[in-house]
Amino acid sequence: MASGFLLALFLSLLFSSAMSQSSPQLSEAQQCRFQRLSASQPSRQIQSEGGVTELWEESQEQFQCAGVAAMRNTLQPNSLSLPNYHPTPRLVYIERGQGFISVTFPGCAETYHSQQTQKTRESEWQRQDLHQKVHRIRRGDIVAIPAGAAHWCYNDGNEELVAVSVNDLNHQSNQLDQKFRAFYLAGGVPKRGQQEQERQTFQNIFREFDSELMAEAFNIPSEIVRKMQSEENRRGLIVNVRERMGFIRPDEEQEQEQWGGQSDNGIEESYCSMKIRTNIENRRDTDIYSRQAGKVNVVDRHKLPLLKYMDMSAERGRLYQNALLSPHWSMHGHTIVYVTGGDANVQVVNNNGQTMMNDNVNKGNMFVVPQYYTVTFKAGNNGFQWVAFKTTGWPMRNPLAGYTSVIRGMPLQVLTNAYQISPNQAQQIKMNRGGESLVLSSGGRSD
Amino acid sequence: MASGFLLALFLSLLFSSAMSQSSPQLSEAQQCRFQRLSASQPSRQIQSEGGVTELWEESQEQFQCAGVAAMRNTLQPNSLSLPNYHPTPRLVYIERGQGFISVTFPGCAETYHSQQTQKTRESEWQRQDLHQKVHRIRRGDIVAIPAGAAHWCYNDGNEELVAVSVNDLNHQSNQLDQKFRAFYLAGGVPKRGQQEQERQTFQNIFREFDSELMAEAFNIPSEIVRKMQSEENRRGLIVNVRERMGFIRPDEEQEQEQWGGQSDNGIEESYCSMKIRTNIENRRDTDIYSRQAGKVNVVDRHKLPLLKYMDMSAERGRLYQNALLSPHWSMHGHTIVYVTGGDANVQVVNNNGQTMMNDNVNKGNMFVVPQYYTVTFKAGNNGFQWVAFKTTGWPMRNPLAGYTSVIRGMPLQVLTNAYQISPNQAQQIKMNRGGESLVLSSGGRSD
Amino acid sequence: MASGFLLALFLSLLFSSAMSQSSPQLSEAQQCRFQRLSASQPSRQIQSEGGVTELWEESQEQFQCAGVAAMRNTLQPNSLSLPNYHPTPRLVYIERGQGFISVTFPGCAETYHSQQTQKTRESEWQRQDLHQKVHRIRRGDIVAIPAGAAHWCYNDGNEELVAVSVNDLNHQSNQLDQKFRAFYLAGGVPKRGQQEQERQTFQNIFREFDSELMAEAFNIPSEIVRKMQSEENRRGLIVNVRERMGFIRPDEEQEQEQWGGQSDNGIEESYCSMKIRTNIENRRDTDIYSRQAGKVNVVDRHKLPLLKYMDMSAERGRLYQNALLSPHWSMHGHTIVYVTGGDANVQVVNNNGQTMMNDNVNKGNMFVVPQYYTVTFKAGNNGFQWVAFKTTGWPMRNPLAGYTSVIRGMPLQVLTNAYQISPNQAQQIKMNRGGESLVLSSGGRSD
Repeated sequence: MASGFLLALFLSLLFSSAMSQSSPQLSEAQQCRFQRLSASQPSRQIQSEGGVTELWEESQEQFQCAGVAAMRNTLQPNSLSLPNYHPTPRLVYIERGQGFISVTFPGCAETYHSQQTQKTRESEWQRQDLHQKVHRIRRGDIVAIPAGAAHWCYNDGNEELVAVSVNDLNHQSNQLDQKFRAFYLAGGVPKRGQQEQERQTFQNIFREFDSELMAEAFNIPSEIVRKMQSEENRRGLIVNVRERMGFIRPDEEQEQEQWGGQSDNGIEESYCSMKIRTNIENRRDTDIYSRQAGKVNVVDRHKLPLLKYMDMSAERGRLYQNALLSPHWSMHGHTIVYVTGGDANVQVVNNNGQTMMNDNVNKGNMFVVPQYYTVTFKAGNNGFQWVAFKTTGWPMRNPLAGYTSVIRGMPLQVLTNAYQISPNQAQQIKMNRGGESLVLSSGGRSD
Repeated sequence: MASGFLLALFLSLLFSSAMSQSSPQLSEAQQCRFQRLSASQPSRQIQSEGGVTELWEESQEQFQCAGVAAMRNTLQPNSLSLPNYHPTPRLVYIERGQGFISVTFPGCAETYHSQQTQKTRESEWQRQDLHQKVHRIRRGDIVAIPAGAAHWCYNDGNEELVAVSVNDLNHQSNQLDQKFRAFYLAGGVPKRGQQEQERQTFQNIFREFDSELMAEAFNIPSEIVRKMQSEENRRGLIVNVRERMGFIRPDEEQEQEQWGGQSDNGIEESYCSMKIRTNIENRRDTDIYSRQAGKVNVVDRHKLPLLKYMDMSAERGRLYQNALLSPHWSMHGHTIVYVTGGDANVQVVNNNGQTMMNDNVNKGNMFVVPQYYTVTFKAGNNGFQWVAFKTTGWPMRNPLAGYTSVIRGMPLQVLTNAYQISPNQAQQIKMNRGGESLVLSSGGRSD
Repeated sequence: MASGFLLALFLSLLFSSAMSQSSPQLSEAQQCRFQRLSASQPSRQIQSEGGVTELWEESQEQFQCAGVAAMRNTLQPNSLSLPNYHPTPRLVYIERGQGFISVTFPGCAETYHSQQTQKTRESEWQRQDLHQKVHRIRRGDIVAIPAGAAHWCYNDGNEELVAVSVNDLNHQSNQLDQKFRAFYLAGGVPKRGQQEQERQTFQNIFREFDSELMAEAFNIPSEIVRKMQSEENRRGLIVNVRERMGFIRPDEEQEQEQWGGQSDNGIEESYCSMKIRTNIENRRDTDIYSRQAGKVNVVDRHKLPLLKYMDMSAERGRLYQNALLSPHWSMHGHTIVYVTGGDANVQVVNNNGQTMMNDNVNKGNMFVVPQYYTVTFKAGNNGFQWVAFKTTGWPMRNPLAGYTSVIRGMPLQVLTNAYQISPNQAQQIKMNRGGESLVLSSGGRSD
């Protein structure tokens, strides 16, 4: 299997494209027939030795409708998020700090050496240690973790590393049910002292195996297996590291050059060397920019080809003081908005004449805008910043107001007859925003 | 995002092919375990100023099984079906009349001018009015409307424009639940005097937004917004037009030439300029023709490439007096049959030894033939005409009788042993229809 | 439609790739939240004239979770499994014996002649009998039967022909519900003397049609139709054949040459001439081989391109005395294991700290390993042999122990900190299996 990997890759690009689309698995529980959306904070948390995991309530109607599970991990300096994998693709936004992440793909070679740390008695081991690629991550990065790929993360900085992540539970590659699961290769939530729900979700897969059998499988003494099983481990999911870890990795800019832009043809890229991260704050990549109103930056499958397989995307937005995001609907997926700064009034309307949301949202809030529902943001006096996670790799918006809007695409006569207005008034609806498109400046009205 | 559109298009053709397949979302409600199919008429209707919308009962078992919603819109002359969009792809058959339709794709340029009408005081506005493409539609057209694309329709003829449409609620691009929804950009069902169900399904999205916020978003006076919100609007979903509308549009034949035939390679076609309609009565395109029995014409993703994304197709059939449609099963999707003329006896059989249907059907009836179930039609004395909508872009039939049949593909010995008949009898089963395939002439039997 | 078939083929390869992925339709019934997996035997059987059909209990939680239906057909020598089709793709493993199979694709030409049998009065019929391709099958073959394709099978050998098959009920092409159905073109389970469940699942589709209508459709006497309807037929699903059947077919090796290896580019292959079988015992194709531990052979979409459309694959494994299959998880689908010989201890662990299975399994047992769950086998003193069916065309494993393991891909420092062990111990975990990968030899431990 491994020998045909490049061929497999090529074919997978042609044929596994089905994986790049979310498949809505609409059990009764997931129906989007609820009445209210709301800005919410994480409701549960798992305290670990080296940090904390905060979970948004997966059973909330809005998250059920979108089919996602959201969490925020905070790693203390010099802490390690233990290796784990989940059955669904995950998109991560690095809100604060810096660190290293590694995502392990099966069948890919270990060709990276660990950097020799400054003072260590065991350098003889580390000098010869081969492992898979380790990636530098820092504030503003979007990291893509495919379903089933084991990953770990280390905070090598001097401040907390805060990572907000969303898993798309409805992704087509998930043949289990619509429930968040994490399989840990080490640590795990202690059996005592935690809620049932967390015990069921974050367990160490080694713990329940027969230790003699594992000892034979790894050809190691049982005492090591018992350490792997962490029977009495109370360190949780994030642990303190004894000595600082260091990794030799390819120069970041070089990595950027190699994969930026030209990987879109989908053929020369190799699964094993695929870029898993990009910075969403990158000014060169800004998709929409208005000197008066703000800017929006999208990371989709064109900027990060791995998102083709994961069928997810992300957006970084900033509105200046009192500016607006044009009322619009999203065509290909749900949007999960996480507020990173400022505040805004958010209005969401559905097709049955109901206001689903008309709230002020603040830093740390998360809310869902369901696919096709119409939404608008109006920033407060301090502006508004957000990151949005989307359950499609091909995000596409239909703005109602502005230069690129649906309304502007309609003939005047359709508007005059639809709204029983004069051609002059119809012209105002179409043209009064001039060249502004998605982000709209605050300004005097023309009346 | 807009700048990379052609690239996005190319990639979308490669990678979004997943959207070209229906994904069955089998909630309990949708199980295909019912006992009876039946020819049905629309059970509900929404009366509007300029026409009427008739709805088949979405909750009927046969429509639940197929995951579709069907309706028939009748527009009076000089009436406008108001702009709206729905979360699921729609295929429309123009049963009568003529008109214009526009389907608005996000990110596509407005490069069409409205035609100057003959007598108008406001020609200065109309002369400079840029908008998206407007398409001529007439009797026999199949029109494809992708999920989430806003569209409107205008009857410029002298008779009623009758359009029968089917939405595929199970399409993979729909991440909401399996329920028909329409989002109107104008008008909408009045809050009073209609059934709860229609109020919840056909609402104006502007109505619930804060009018001051909308005024700011469009940079227009609040009074115009209140017109857009149509608070007291009782005109419904289809409205009368004050003066006749006219549009300059590319010559139809030219459009036909440009897109017919060669768009199949999937690369040179642009999302923005994609053909959305074709005529299913076109004699040159007839797929199956028998001088004695009738003909069948299919519009699939080869004839209308947009259907690749929508994973739907349509079929126009005509049986002459007493002719038969060979008993057959469909491999890739459900079939929703709408009777346009004549009558027939329809028999549908399932795999548990039950006759699901054995009824006479007439003009205006609609019924579902579930995927894989065996069906046959026998036309009455006046022949039989129908249009069928299919929940697959790749319709494929397995006839049991006739030249291209499954039975004919089997060795004689398999038939003699399967049915305990003589080779001569087996030969009759295989060969007695001669060169006739799907449509079979009425005729004397050989006994 | 038929005339554009090659074009259709090419496009289907590009665009219907969505069919190559399983779509999980997660009704309440299918949730994978059960507590126990278990090795099970068929629980029901249908006795026919020429053999027996044994069914595993479809409603068992493990089969519900995987969305599969499993059965074992045993054909006596000179017996015929009657023509039938099912709405879901099927993968078959020939456990014993030899025979012929034909899978009928719609629209493909009948260009094969039946072989003249040695002594027959009716050679004039057989000499001119054209039909679709007939394939030789024998022990160790994997046969792929697409959804909706009619097929029959004949045992021309001197011993029983035993075929174990799994249908993927969740496959995207199935727009009916998650329930096994078989549509028979002949025979069928008698209405009396069988359980309700079998009557509902295995019925003759001709039986309920009006016999006069069928007589007209086929243009044959009603008496032949009544034979086809098999009203009083008590022969069931497999029947005895009066005279030995023989077929001229292309030389097997030639068929192998023609399609092996180069069909991967997905363009030159034609649906009609597509290979439907391959031998999984083929030594040249062994994917993993260890002189000490055993071997594993995979049949995926690269070896049998039809599996792209069916999104299934198979695996043949053999462990020598006391050898192990490395603990691992499967990324892209569920695994249904059928034991063909020997015995093993099987342990399966999930993410909520539970042992799902810790049992000894023997010849004839079947069990499910859900996607992402961790599993390991340890063979008994007589070794262990199995065939596994997978609900993905792209099977990929993540082993925990061995040369290609996830653990080996991690830096030493991650392991030392994760498990609180020394670098020396971490090195043992990574390296003690040396070059062994998925199949691990039994051996002394290093302690």
